[in-house]
Amino acid sequence: MTSSPARRLVVVGAGPGGYEAALAGAAAGLAVTLIERGKLGGTCLNWGCIPTKHLLATTLAVETLAAQAKQKLASGTVTPDLAAIQAKKKKLLAATHSAMAATLQKAGIRLVTANLAGVSTGVAHTAAGSETEDIPFDSLILALGSRAASFPGVKPDGQAVLGVAPVLDFTEAPESLVIVGAGAIGLEIATIFHRLGAKVTLVDAAPRLAPAEDPDVAKVVAQVMRRQGIDARPGVKVESLVTENGRARLTLAGGEVVTADKALVAIGRFAATVVPGLAECGATFADTAPNRAWLATDAALQTAPDIYAVGDCNGRVLLAHAAASQGVYAARHAAGLEKGPYAPGPIPGCYYGSPEIMRVGAVAAPGDTISEAAFVANPIAQAHADTAGFARVLWKDGKVAGITAVGHGASTMATLATVLVSQAWTREQAEALVFPHPGLDETVKAALLGEMKTKA
Amino acid sequence: MTSSPARRLVVVGAGPGGYEAALAGAAAGLAVTLIERGKLGGTCLNWGCIPTKHLLATTLAVETLAAQAKQKLASGTVTPDLAAIQAKKKKLLAATHSAMAATLQKAGIRLVTANLAGVSTGVAHTAAGSETEDIPFDSLILALGSRAASFPGVKPDGQAVLGVAPVLDFTEAPESLVIVGAGAIGLEIATIFHRLGAKVTLVDAAPRLAPAEDPDVAKVVAQVMRRQGIDARPGVKVESLVTENGRARLTLAGGEVVTADKALVAIGRFAATVVPGLAECGATFADTAPNRAWLATDAALQTAPDIYAVGDCNGRVLLAHAAASQGVYAARHAAGLEKGPYAPGPIPGCYYGSPEIMRVGAVAAPGDTISEAAFVANPIAQAHADTAGFARVLWKDGKVAGITAVGHGASTMATLATVLVSQAWTREQAEALVFPHPGLDETVKAALLGEMKTKA
Repeated sequence: MTSSPARRLVVVGAGPGGYEAALAGAAAGLAVTLIERGKLGGTCLNWGCIPTKHLLATTLAVETLAAQAKQKLASGTVTPDLAAIQAKKKKLLAATHSAMAATLQKAGIRLVTANLAGVSTGVAHTAAGSETEDIPFDSLILALGSRAASFPGVKPDGQAVLGVAPVLDFTEAPESLVIVGAGAIGLEIATIFHRLGAKVTLVDAAPRLAPAEDPDVAKVVAQVMRRQGIDARPGVKVESLVTENGRARLTLAGGEVVTADKALVAIGRFAATVVPGLAECGATFADTAPNRAWLATDAALQTAPDIYAVGDCNGRVLLAHAAASQGVYAARHAAGLEKGPYAPGPIPGCYYGSPEIMRVGAVAAPGDTISEAAFVANPIAQAHADTAGFARVLWKDGKVAGITAVGHGASTMATLATVLVSQAWTREQAEALVFPHPGLDETVKAALLGEMKTKA
Repeated sequence: MTSSPARRLVVVGAGPGGYEAALAGAAAGLAVTLIERGKLGGTCLNWGCIPTKHLLATTLAVETLAAQAKQKLASGTVTPDLAAIQAKKKKLLAATHSAMAATLQKAGIRLVTANLAGVSTGVAHTAAGSETEDIPFDSLILALGSRAASFPGVKPDGQAVLGVAPVLDFTEAPESLVIVGAGAIGLEIATIFHRLGAKVTLVDAAPRLAPAEDPDVAKVVAQVMRRQGIDARPGVKVESLVTENGRARLTLAGGEVVTADKALVAIGRFAATVVPGLAECGATFADTAPNRAWLATDAALQTAPDIYAVGDCNGRVLLAHAAASQGVYAARHAAGLEKGPYAPGPIPGCYYGSPEIMRVGAVAAPGDTISEAAFVANPIAQAHADTAGFARVLWKDGKVAGITAVGHGASTMATLATVLVSQAWTREQAEALVFPHPGLDETVKAALLGEMKTKA
């Protein structure tokens, strides 16, 4: 008996989507090649989720003390050493890179450090300097990620106006920082540098902070950040953002000028899908504008015959765990282990700054049925003197369709909320579950059991 | 049409069990009288869960800074003001007492501030000073709580050797503190006063700290506490603990003597069930020793005809949320709304000191099937420089039967774990759920998907 040679899976991009796809492909018996031009881990590990969490955690004591000091329950000073924090971050990332490389090797995955120069039917063309290699595939998974958005006039210039990557590498906090964009990245970085002593100005053209979230969540975010001393201004149009005399100069519509040592542009993400030959292979794009050319995918995450697109590059959900989930599905689909459409259940989203936010399911719209509870009655939030915010449940036909929360430790509720939404819990189920006391999750329970009402 | 008069429910004890029973009874249409001799909220609110959480939260910045300083990522000092923290605690408790009283009043519940002097068939006899009142009932719910255990030679004397209540009211931290008993209370108080600068010595006769928990959990607790500088000594028998010259003097079996400014006795709980007439009404006790005379209860939580016992006093599970769950059931059973036996599903348990512990379901025994994951690979734990510990899953017939965790933020996983255990999740369900990244809960997922093995 001879066994047929293993089917060849090529994965492009070693962020959460590609890395998990490669491992799942190998586990399914495919011969896997993983192509990555830069560092393992993609945006999430190197310039996104993980460095921001490191900076948030290592500066947390500043805020914990400030909350106590404001209540006159403690005194003192906490001075984070940003250079040391960055050195530690490098070590942690390097250790993670090594661990990932070892895991790939152990799984028998070939790692090719190269650019994807192009694609043709059944072949990925790579280039590393002058070296090129054509790598044949039976299935290709594109996990190309995304890149920071910019617009004419609001664009990093490498001087005082910067993108997220250099800001996350600062070894010294600027005395003042302007942030354009109040999404997850802008909010988290505002928290980090506020804790590090910078005067932070945060602007967004959208009418509220965290514009993707519930307007009442945004209200709490604005209230908390302003109390902390962050100058948070939603609904403000930027005229221009430039470096002048080595400093950032932000001009707002109407003429007001804000200057700062540095500025961060964090106004969303663009597609990173420019791959020669991809369209000729049959790939289609969700939008014709080049910056919005997310790869269109079918129910099996395929963008062309035998070519999958997972993670940010398909524009579905720009979150690391969504990418990983899609990557695993695509690899298993390529191996014949998944036959049905990709149906992952609800995808939680978290903001880890101050205040924290989490959401699973849709934002409640006017007319929807909701119930809610405030953190002010929660003994854990009370003990931390951090009682702003609430949890809110969105109901459809008497079942939980969404949960959002803003406030102390809200991110810790996200997995629980994902389970409740994915199972469409009833009020009776919530009543029957014994929640640990005291716990922040009790505010989720109180929201589940709160008075049902129609959102105004 | 005339309606028959409402059935009369008398509840004794306004801790979590009695308070929730009273509210559930009123919601079910019963005419409710709640008898409480002291403060609303019982041990949990006044001398247990809530004050310890307040002290843990208000001293947390000390430890957060210490963890960063140890890594040379921050410098500074944090000095909690214990007198101010206690004043704040009093305010918070007073506000909670008022809110509870208002809730009772709004629900039409009569609150009687008196001792329960005795019980006879259909009547609760109360006494407040020289005032007595006989309160007739159709159903009686006893939520009598428990009291701190002591033994000859290891007993608070009101001088330097104290019970938990006065220690939680200290307005000045002792320079040194001996704690006898390494259960949840002893461990949490060790963390609190260590943060407040006391030299803490913690002893327990049991062979490990947190003796009710998994031995491998106990190992992590011992390792973390010793690294912090707490002198934690399980497996040590106490010969005597007395006040001598105003200081606590602990003599261990073998003769070693430890002296300290103060000592805490936290060696468990005794039954608080001495009620004249109760046995004559038909109540039975789980044990004949007076200190262990927990009220025996049947499947409907009845200890005698029309008399329920809920919470600590029945000795089932000495946790506030267990009491509340039982109280609600008993009141609804008394109202005819519950017909089946009391079957609450799994009851989570948490320790909120440092390190945190949580457990749902049984401790894994040798021969059981388990899977696990360490926090060292978790990016949130890494970011907090707090990577000791692990999550462990106990499996029965390929389904989740228990989850325990020790380490950074372990208590935040308890509700999620309760859902997974109550639903007896399979590995496939865990694989299908998209967990938020990065999150501490990912260590629970890694444990769920870890290699199955037999516990040694």
